[in-house]
Amino acid sequence: MNNYNAISEDVIQQIKDAVSGKVYVGDEVNEDFFHDEMPIYGEGYPDCLVDAQSTEDVAAIMKICNENKVPVIARGAGTGLTGAGVAIKKGVMINMQTMNEILDYDVDNMVVRVQPGVLLNDLAEDCLSKGYLYPPDPGEKFATLGGNVATNAGGMRAVKYGTTRDYVRAMQVVLPNGEITNFGAVISKSSTGYSLKDLMIGSEGTLGIITELTLKIVPAPKTTISLIVPFEDLNSCIGTVPKLFQANLNPQAIEFMERKIVLASEKYIGKETFPKNIDGTDVNAYLLITFDGDDEDGIYDTMERAAEVLTENGAIDVLVADTPAQLKEAWAARSSFLEAIESQYKLLDECDVVVPITKIAEYVEFVNETAEEYMFDVQSFGHAGDGNLHIYTLSNEEEKLDQFKDEVHEFMLIIYKKAYDLGGKLSGEHGVGAGKLQYLKEFEGGLNTDLMRGIKKVFDPNMILNPDKVIGIN
Amino acid sequence: MNNYNAISEDVIQQIKDAVSGKVYVGDEVNEDFFHDEMPIYGEGYPDCLVDAQSTEDVAAIMKICNENKVPVIARGAGTGLTGAGVAIKKGVMINMQTMNEILDYDVDNMVVRVQPGVLLNDLAEDCLSKGYLYPPDPGEKFATLGGNVATNAGGMRAVKYGTTRDYVRAMQVVLPNGEITNFGAVISKSSTGYSLKDLMIGSEGTLGIITELTLKIVPAPKTTISLIVPFEDLNSCIGTVPKLFQANLNPQAIEFMERKIVLASEKYIGKETFPKNIDGTDVNAYLLITFDGDDEDGIYDTMERAAEVLTENGAIDVLVADTPAQLKEAWAARSSFLEAIESQYKLLDECDVVVPITKIAEYVEFVNETAEEYMFDVQSFGHAGDGNLHIYTLSNEEEKLDQFKDEVHEFMLIIYKKAYDLGGKLSGEHGVGAGKLQYLKEFEGGLNTDLMRGIKKVFDPNMILNPDKVIGIN
Repeated sequence: MNNYNAISEDVIQQIKDAVSGKVYVGDEVNEDFFHDEMPIYGEGYPDCLVDAQSTEDVAAIMKICNENKVPVIARGAGTGLTGAGVAIKKGVMINMQTMNEILDYDVDNMVVRVQPGVLLNDLAEDCLSKGYLYPPDPGEKFATLGGNVATNAGGMRAVKYGTTRDYVRAMQVVLPNGEITNFGAVISKSSTGYSLKDLMIGSEGTLGIITELTLKIVPAPKTTISLIVPFEDLNSCIGTVPKLFQANLNPQAIEFMERKIVLASEKYIGKETFPKNIDGTDVNAYLLITFDGDDEDGIYDTMERAAEVLTENGAIDVLVADTPAQLKEAWAARSSFLEAIESQYKLLDECDVVVPITKIAEYVEFVNETAEEYMFDVQSFGHAGDGNLHIYTLSNEEEKLDQFKDEVHEFMLIIYKKAYDLGGKLSGEHGVGAGKLQYLKEFEGGLNTDLMRGIKKVFDPNMILNPDKVIGIN
Repeated sequence: MNNYNAISEDVIQQIKDAVSGKVYVGDEVNEDFFHDEMPIYGEGYPDCLVDAQSTEDVAAIMKICNENKVPVIARGAGTGLTGAGVAIKKGVMINMQTMNEILDYDVDNMVVRVQPGVLLNDLAEDCLSKGYLYPPDPGEKFATLGGNVATNAGGMRAVKYGTTRDYVRAMQVVLPNGEITNFGAVISKSSTGYSLKDLMIGSEGTLGIITELTLKIVPAPKTTISLIVPFEDLNSCIGTVPKLFQANLNPQAIEFMERKIVLASEKYIGKETFPKNIDGTDVNAYLLITFDGDDEDGIYDTMERAAEVLTENGAIDVLVADTPAQLKEAWAARSSFLEAIESQYKLLDECDVVVPITKIAEYVEFVNETAEEYMFDVQSFGHAGDGNLHIYTLSNEEEKLDQFKDEVHEFMLIIYKKAYDLGGKLSGEHGVGAGKLQYLKEFEGGLNTDLMRGIKKVFDPNMILNPDKVIGIN
């Protein structure tokens, strides 16, 4: 157990004197900052909140807190799903949303320099307006880019374009002692010592605070086509996915969904797009596939080859969406899964496991069968192209919160174990935060978590930065 | 200064008793193991050499050496260019070339599992025979895959496909205390704690010894075309490169070369392929560009669009190579640069800087001008698509070895500084090893190298594994 100091009036005054951004103390802190999107992991109440205006603000706060052994946490848009951005040990919360400028584009080197508080959606739109694509595409478009980097956010387009890690070229970082440094460079290639940049990516704000990012962009593809592909069962649906890769069709996204969640989501948005029965055959699973490229003829050729592979492997039909309106409609239900779930249930927990793509069907069936033993409903969907599954445990029995938590814990231990048995990992893109911390040690093992804890102590000897996230003290 | 123990008869006997592989002691060690491909950084004489047969062999050696504080070094094919694989502190050298099996393919998940001693060339050929491509393509095809991962090797195709880092999915690692662990998984996406896998990649055998690798493969593209593109001067040659990216032409490789090195290499191989004068205009620089893809029509369309961009931006001509024989011929001179240089000079040092692609011409001109002050010749070539340059300092005055070394050191300080001023790094793909260790601290700074040293001590508290490589003791 680490001992942190409670923040004093004197420390608050030191911070106020040192920073240019606004400082909120105690009750002045808006309650939006007390939790993230997964309130089941609990709330946290920062003693004070600072709207960061500059790298120097962040450095000054960090130096003061390190000297006084006061916890510090950087906060993006609060859209996380693991409690990583919640001040569970109190102390100072730094609001990074106030550092939200797109600084400059260097289009010859295909990079853009941003402050970490820029929202993904704002960068995506700004890039598109200039003819570029920032490829990472997590479901939550109103997260900050700093938060995306902190969790190595993935998203739909990871199949073709990779995750956030693949688009971070360089970063400015404030270390826990208040020193400012830089990792990476504009260049794409480096073998210049250990990759501190890659260590920062996915470290969930526990090793340093990112105050500037240089991100890779690519020319925006000129054409996009999506296919809605109904199947009679999940097995044939998922079994088709490796065939698409073998045929070198290079899809941008491949999502799978089961009938139940499509029905719920279509009800929620009030519009039916997905076929439920085709010529007397019930549809029980779908793929939603997107291809992109510059060459319109090439894309249609790819689509035809894909349709052939899909129907040869059990697809009942292949529905094409190739106008902006059709594309929007095809993706509307998928985009509303989380909201649809949230509108139906009062108690909600989730996991974000990733398994080899060949194991998805087996895994989802195991999860569904296992869930039958428990009080909660389970709904799952996910990225069939990379094996990353979002599995929601859901209940409306608010009065049985403790039982729900206990059963979810038991269930998670079982399904995480299965994921590891199949060669998977516990998080594909949401991270560990506070909510999955105990599972990290359980499933990654003491050897690996001891290495992680050792690394944490190298960066943060006083363990003041986002304490008890990713790894605990012991 | 760290104190290592000299190896004792007892320790050698413990190793002999513990391992299944052959153990060579003292004079029994072949002198090939005393150096790598850059002998100017000095030789190192292991006290004993073990042909590793298994992960358990490696673990047993590591445990014994850690208990006895004896240095250990893993050795691949010895093709490195920085002295990283040389036993400069003596101790035990583990020959990983004897763990050289391609274990199995999982083509549905698009991965292959290999032992680290498999040669790049052997995996590349085996993959192609099955219709797959292992994309990383460093110039040296007879390096081990373990060595490729240890240096995050890049190569020609990094422009389109990325570096070795992008193809490592999982690894088995023996830690310096002899414990065996695993980093990563078959899956492509993970946010499961700090990326220990990414930390291992490029750590040059200083954090642990890799005993198994799971590598990503892709379907082999069906068509390949290369273009030889002559320019009157280096500036217009390099200036064209960003235009190719802006046009989204997605080249597999873009190499640049100056007239001097082409002449030397063509003389060496005894065959002239590159035009030297076109309609009275002297050619002083070339691009060698490759496109690949599945769709033959698409590739020719890409080539035509590329030819348009190139001629609009100063190319004197565009020569197409699209048969296997023509492709081999087009790349013959480029493939022989290093041999051509080695055949001409007795003293040789090199650096492997990387600068933003927009800065290559400015940088090469700076290097050439700076070189005029010194006793040595300079020849450079490199990857125009990613800014990674190979700059050779060359002399035949063997009797002036000390002067050569001193002048090269002075020259390197100047050109590394310039690379960093332009936003570059000191190594794009060769690594730091022993040869660049002093420059790492100089140019990456004390803050970053202190973090690296801290990480090293977390993995290797006794600092026995490949000591004084990448980072020094202090």
